[in-house]
Amino acid sequence: MFTPSGRRGRFPIGTSVLGAARRLGVDLDSVCGGRAICGRCQVQQSVGDFPKHGVRSELAHLSAPGEPEHRYAARRGLDSGRRLACSTLILGDVVVDVPPDSQVHRQVVRKRAEVRAIELEPAVRLHHVEVREPDMHDPRGDLARLTDALREEWGLTELACDLAVLTGLQRTLRAGAWRVTVAVHDGREIVAVWPGFRERVHGLAVDVGSTTIAAHLCDLGSGEVVASAGMMNPQIRFGDDLMSRVSYVMMHPGGDGEMTRAVRESINDLAVEVAREAGIECSDILDVVLVGNPVMHHLLLGLDPTELGGAPFALAVDAALRLRASELDLRLHPGARVYVLPCIAGHVGADCAAVVLSEAPYQGDAVSLLVDVGTNAEIVLGNRERLLACSSPTGPAFEGAQITAGQRAAPGAIERVRIDRQSLEPRFKVIGCDLWSDAPGFAEATATSGVTGICGSGVIEAIAEMFLAGIVDRDGVVDGAVATRSARVVPDGRTFGYVLHASPDRTIAITQADVRAIQLAKAALHAGVRLLMDELGVDHVDRIRLAGAFGSHIDVKYAMVLGLVPDCALEHVTSAGNAAGTGARIALLDRRARGEIEAVVRRIQKVETAVEPRFQAHFVEAMAIPHRTAEYPRLAAVVDLPPPPTGAGPGAPRRRRRRAG
Amino acid sequence: MFTPSGRRGRFPIGTSVLGAARRLGVDLDSVCGGRAICGRCQVQQSVGDFPKHGVRSELAHLSAPGEPEHRYAARRGLDSGRRLACSTLILGDVVVDVPPDSQVHRQVVRKRAEVRAIELEPAVRLHHVEVREPDMHDPRGDLARLTDALREEWGLTELACDLAVLTGLQRTLRAGAWRVTVAVHDGREIVAVWPGFRERVHGLAVDVGSTTIAAHLCDLGSGEVVASAGMMNPQIRFGDDLMSRVSYVMMHPGGDGEMTRAVRESINDLAVEVAREAGIECSDILDVVLVGNPVMHHLLLGLDPTELGGAPFALAVDAALRLRASELDLRLHPGARVYVLPCIAGHVGADCAAVVLSEAPYQGDAVSLLVDVGTNAEIVLGNRERLLACSSPTGPAFEGAQITAGQRAAPGAIERVRIDRQSLEPRFKVIGCDLWSDAPGFAEATATSGVTGICGSGVIEAIAEMFLAGIVDRDGVVDGAVATRSARVVPDGRTFGYVLHASPDRTIAITQADVRAIQLAKAALHAGVRLLMDELGVDHVDRIRLAGAFGSHIDVKYAMVLGLVPDCALEHVTSAGNAAGTGARIALLDRRARGEIEAVVRRIQKVETAVEPRFQAHFVEAMAIPHRTAEYPRLAAVVDLPPPPTGAGPGAPRRRRRRAG
Repeated sequence: MFTPSGRRGRFPIGTSVLGAARRLGVDLDSVCGGRAICGRCQVQQSVGDFPKHGVRSELAHLSAPGEPEHRYAARRGLDSGRRLACSTLILGDVVVDVPPDSQVHRQVVRKRAEVRAIELEPAVRLHHVEVREPDMHDPRGDLARLTDALREEWGLTELACDLAVLTGLQRTLRAGAWRVTVAVHDGREIVAVWPGFRERVHGLAVDVGSTTIAAHLCDLGSGEVVASAGMMNPQIRFGDDLMSRVSYVMMHPGGDGEMTRAVRESINDLAVEVAREAGIECSDILDVVLVGNPVMHHLLLGLDPTELGGAPFALAVDAALRLRASELDLRLHPGARVYVLPCIAGHVGADCAAVVLSEAPYQGDAVSLLVDVGTNAEIVLGNRERLLACSSPTGPAFEGAQITAGQRAAPGAIERVRIDRQSLEPRFKVIGCDLWSDAPGFAEATATSGVTGICGSGVIEAIAEMFLAGIVDRDGVVDGAVATRSARVVPDGRTFGYVLHASPDRTIAITQADVRAIQLAKAALHAGVRLLMDELGVDHVDRIRLAGAFGSHIDVKYAMVLGLVPDCALEHVTSAGNAAGTGARIALLDRRARGEIEAVVRRIQKVETAVEPRFQAHFVEAMAIPHRTAEYPRLAAVVDLPPPPTGAGPGAPRRRRRRAG
Repeated sequence: MFTPSGRRGRFPIGTSVLGAARRLGVDLDSVCGGRAICGRCQVQQSVGDFPKHGVRSELAHLSAPGEPEHRYAARRGLDSGRRLACSTLILGDVVVDVPPDSQVHRQVVRKRAEVRAIELEPAVRLHHVEVREPDMHDPRGDLARLTDALREEWGLTELACDLAVLTGLQRTLRAGAWRVTVAVHDGREIVAVWPGFRERVHGLAVDVGSTTIAAHLCDLGSGEVVASAGMMNPQIRFGDDLMSRVSYVMMHPGGDGEMTRAVRESINDLAVEVAREAGIECSDILDVVLVGNPVMHHLLLGLDPTELGGAPFALAVDAALRLRASELDLRLHPGARVYVLPCIAGHVGADCAAVVLSEAPYQGDAVSLLVDVGTNAEIVLGNRERLLACSSPTGPAFEGAQITAGQRAAPGAIERVRIDRQSLEPRFKVIGCDLWSDAPGFAEATATSGVTGICGSGVIEAIAEMFLAGIVDRDGVVDGAVATRSARVVPDGRTFGYVLHASPDRTIAITQADVRAIQLAKAALHAGVRLLMDELGVDHVDRIRLAGAFGSHIDVKYAMVLGLVPDCALEHVTSAGNAAGTGARIALLDRRARGEIEAVVRRIQKVETAVEPRFQAHFVEAMAIPHRTAEYPRLAAVVDLPPPPTGAGPGAPRRRRRRAG
């Protein structure tokens, strides 16, 4: 009997434990095919009575370790009590436990608290085989004898074979003295063959963002991330945001080709970098998963993104793609394959599909809201019953662009802001320094970077604190009357601004225009969310996950104070971290996840904000900043929101009506 | 009711004839999908009573020709009585005939009397579709809308799509105003899309011989060969015959790469040539079928042929291959596919498989012997019950190599020889001249080419005539005693030769060494055939087909006189012409033939002559030239064979013994 599966059967005395496990369909790993080389089939015997199963498992019921097992133990080490299932024979009734690390479909340990565990079933698997030598009586080719071995030893049938494998096959078979390790992709294609035994093969998960490209190198045998690297997307020189890159293509025929080459070269550079860090070669990489927003997705694939620049925002392709790495000019193993996650809609890309895969809102009953904020916000709402998605044109304000003192999140940028409710004096933190600005030593600690500007999360906090301190009213007006109480509030043409920081070098202030920019962005985001909530027929969400860099940096409380997202218990509003990258990694490590996300994406209902008349109404309503009303009860319970003004704004009554209706 | 299929059904009044045909599974062609553009769906109505079927078919039971049909007729012409099925509505009981040229699976007319008809079902088919335009309510990509149209209009599902098609898809769809023609490979892959309607697509069948490469360009819609071209195999500079090319690779590491490039470039050159001749572009070629002997097969695919140079003659791959043309550096349409026929054994290649496909011995009861003579003879024997194959090391003598005055079949080469039984004076014909050498005007007619040497078929005839004239005995000895009767028989060292032609420029003679070389070659061929006959358990064959250039040039009677092949009624010994090229063309035009030949090749029993002890015995026996005995009764009935010598040679009694046994 095997634990934990509970599978049991009767076998002739002398059957190997691995053989018995295979015949019973027990989940027990092996790469070398039972030659005591790989050590993946380690098991341990449970000794004693198992009355429920009528089994008495005695030590003598398994053969003693023999020469191959001793050899393995000497070479690689074997923990006490562990046996190699391939070299251990069954001599009587036994109970054999398959520890988690010997299971094929073992779970990958994820570093952070994550929604779903990753089960390991990579698309590329290694199989060690012994191939019959050719002789004059067997006129079949090397390939036929190789596929025979794969069928006999591993049950693999109807395998295709890459031409590149074929061209090297004769030498490889002879160099390995007819013992080779074969990499099979998706159980259907022979993509690589190496002489002798080989244990490891790697894969690359790549998230191609508009700003940065991040790559994670994974050991496909263990599921571990063995190296990660990121770099700026070189397309930035063609335009800071997506739409300027699309414009570049429109204005420069062939410009998409330049950008395609640039991004593919970056992935090659990243591959070299992570391979070097992990001490492997790029040619050890056999599988790649790519995600990106629709424009990046298209440019990476060599598809003209122009159509994405205007209505009806038609994608060239939305389905998942299975390609060879060489088709994308990636210089990895010649047999390396690429899987590109599906896009959801013209503005909701494969990156968002990866977020959905990582967060798996379709597995639970809780109504989850996933928000990935970039130049567009990609929004997904729903649960196992139904999922909706849309994109909302937030513009780049959340990333610090179009903000007077805005800058990218980099050392020197203000990222945290607090304003004293009485004195209206601010204090802040800058990226790269752990001290608040009013702490001793702050000036020295920031001497190198200086205080250079304010990043997206800093702007959110600054305006939210300004609102909570009464400097900004719920309509977003910087109140000039407050100038009498604080010299921080200063006139700026016909409006007012709030000075966060002034030094001989520069003044960093939040202007009325900045508040308006953030209001427009957050109104767009909120209106998109509302649209999906209307469509789903819910008036609150159970859980909010903020994905991407913005979602990682932002303090969710302030996001809610400004009304970026609807009311929700604060403990259920969390950052999803680099969920797109995690989703890519899941698709890399578990090929079943590929079919899963394709099926999920097909049933996601896409909502086009641009053609929904209600979007405009929600947008206008969402311009205001929430106050202490029934609107944000969960937030109001933990944050001291300002009271509603007398003669409340235009949005509140309407919103209440709808909820009552 | 439809004729000739006899399929019938009931449909609502107003159903189109094409629609009804499709629902009934009637074999009726269409490319444009019912838009009265392509004219492939032409039918004619049979009018009158069909009492057996209880149908009275009246003219009024089909709608009168409408505007689309008039437009087509004006543009392309429409024979009287012909209707476009797509534009003709059923108004009552009708009998509609589908003429052969409107059937999808129509037969291709072959020029020569051939064994099998080719049915047309190319791997690449064109489908004209109208694609829905994208709109804001349909967020799916262009590809999804294209595959929708292919599913709805043509019933094609689960289509994959080449990346190269994807990168151009947006432009193509818009350039065609959402009407495009799609090339689908094997019903599974979208390999090309063109704007608007497109009717024709081409394929290339290529036979890569050691000496020449021949290419046939076919219209995949009609099955016609629209252009053919041939060229010398550029690998000749690496070695005249196969084994010298293998030696070149062994001696020059990387030499296989050079040869691979050379042969691929030749195919590119041939493609340019046939495309120009047909007035098309290379990019109009979507499908390619390649055949060749094992060494050519390997070099073409980039596989090292070294293993084929020595026992156990292991192929890298014997199975059929499905590749992209770009993988072989062929510059055709980017989506062009390549099909390579399977090899049968280490010395019996894809060219032989093509001969088998063309000759189809597996379809009949007659025991067929197929012989393709090159540097090796590839031999196939059998019928529908059982097929055997082997290769025999004939060497290049049959091609005129290793013959004193031998040369390739080219203008000036002697190809026919007759020797007067009394005077022993020869007369001959040379390639490029229709006159016999004793006819008036011969000298003038051959003034340009001269008489330069003797080709393979000329050598066969010369030696056979020498035997029939008593100049050579059945052991192959040029009889010096005959010198007393003819000055043509002259001493040559310690042996004698026979002078065919003497001019101030050169003397062309058959020497004793030449007779020995041909004896060795023919003994090898005959021994291989005998081995297969033993294995099959037959003592005669019903039909002999000689394939290849040698088979086309040779006079079968003389081949039998020398004993190249076993006895057979002369009318059943014929040339199969370029059967390898024909087989390639069949595989190009009928994709079902691909599966067919793969299945046949799998069940062909391969016999390795080198390990068969009986081969040597047969070889020794077959050295002698047949005489007037029970051995060649069918030949002796038409040719005056010399009587057996007194004290017959060592072979005859043994051979008789075996037959008696």
